[in-house]
Amino acid sequence: MKHTISVLVENKPGVLARISGLFSARGFNIDSLAVGETNDPTMSRMTIVANAPDERILEQIKKQLNKLIDVISVVDLTRRDFFERELLLIKVQNPVESKSLSALIGKYAATVLSQEDTETIIEAVGTYARMNELVEALKGVGTVKELVRTGRIAIGC
Amino acid sequence: MKHTISVLVENKPGVLARISGLFSARGFNIDSLAVGETNDPTMSRMTIVANAPDERILEQIKKQLNKLIDVISVVDLTRRDFFERELLLIKVQNPVESKSLSALIGKYAATVLSQEDTETIIEAVGTYARMNELVEALKGVGTVKELVRTGRIAIGC
Repeated sequence: MKHTISVLVENKPGVLARISGLFSARGFNIDSLAVGETNDPTMSRMTIVANAPDERILEQIKKQLNKLIDVISVVDLTRRDFFERELLLIKVQNPVESKSLSALIGKYAATVLSQEDTETIIEAVGTYARMNELVEALKGVGTVKELVRTGRIAIGC
Repeated sequence: MKHTISVLVENKPGVLARISGLFSARGFNIDSLAVGETNDPTMSRMTIVANAPDERILEQIKKQLNKLIDVISVVDLTRRDFFERELLLIKVQNPVESKSLSALIGKYAATVLSQEDTETIIEAVGTYARMNELVEALKGVGTVKELVRTGRIAIGC
């Protein structure tokens, strides 16, 4: 089961290494991780999406996270209502039929950042599932040359 | 000086811990880090923004990153042309004067995800600088109750 965990931490060197170490020491692969600033410049918020084949180990990790001195709070959003979003920057080779690309950009409310003779760079935001859909659709109309994703962030309703 | 580094890695447990450990062992604080999927399910891309008080240590870190077995490529975008974007989810207490919030949402092309009697959740995308501007402006019209940022991602032009 996929878990979305929001961790508020002190903004200090080494925190990220300790937290990611907790997961990797137990063989958990982190699907995505986003670390950004918060309202308070001394704190950062990490949003971690991890697949938990074993719920008990995840519970252990959450307890250990809570014990780390630089961790202020740990919230598992999985069983709550939350909005989840991800940002993508995508470089696509322009398809022969340019209307097919324009149609997708419209459908997914994406933004064109640059358009050259041979390639277009677009920005898109949405849920993880919808963004996967967009990437598959883009592959269908042309070549995706580069894809950069932020990983998901989430906010409780 | 702030550096934006894009690292393509094998999608394996422990990679993130090793990379963040390289930075923290040298006392570098990572400003933001976003790890997301790529076109290839076996690889992830990390976009790291770090402040480098000492350029030589950063050069060492980049060399050591390149030597890690799970690191496929390291690109320092700092001296290249690139688009840089960040996604924010923001929960604000509704101001008494609701027009002031609507005006900001319009100005920054933000999206309203939910609007309740007392609070509004919005989604916004832009450069780091512009998103800082938005957050400051939101503080000016009301209370920012929660702020979640992805950290920056970047794509070369």
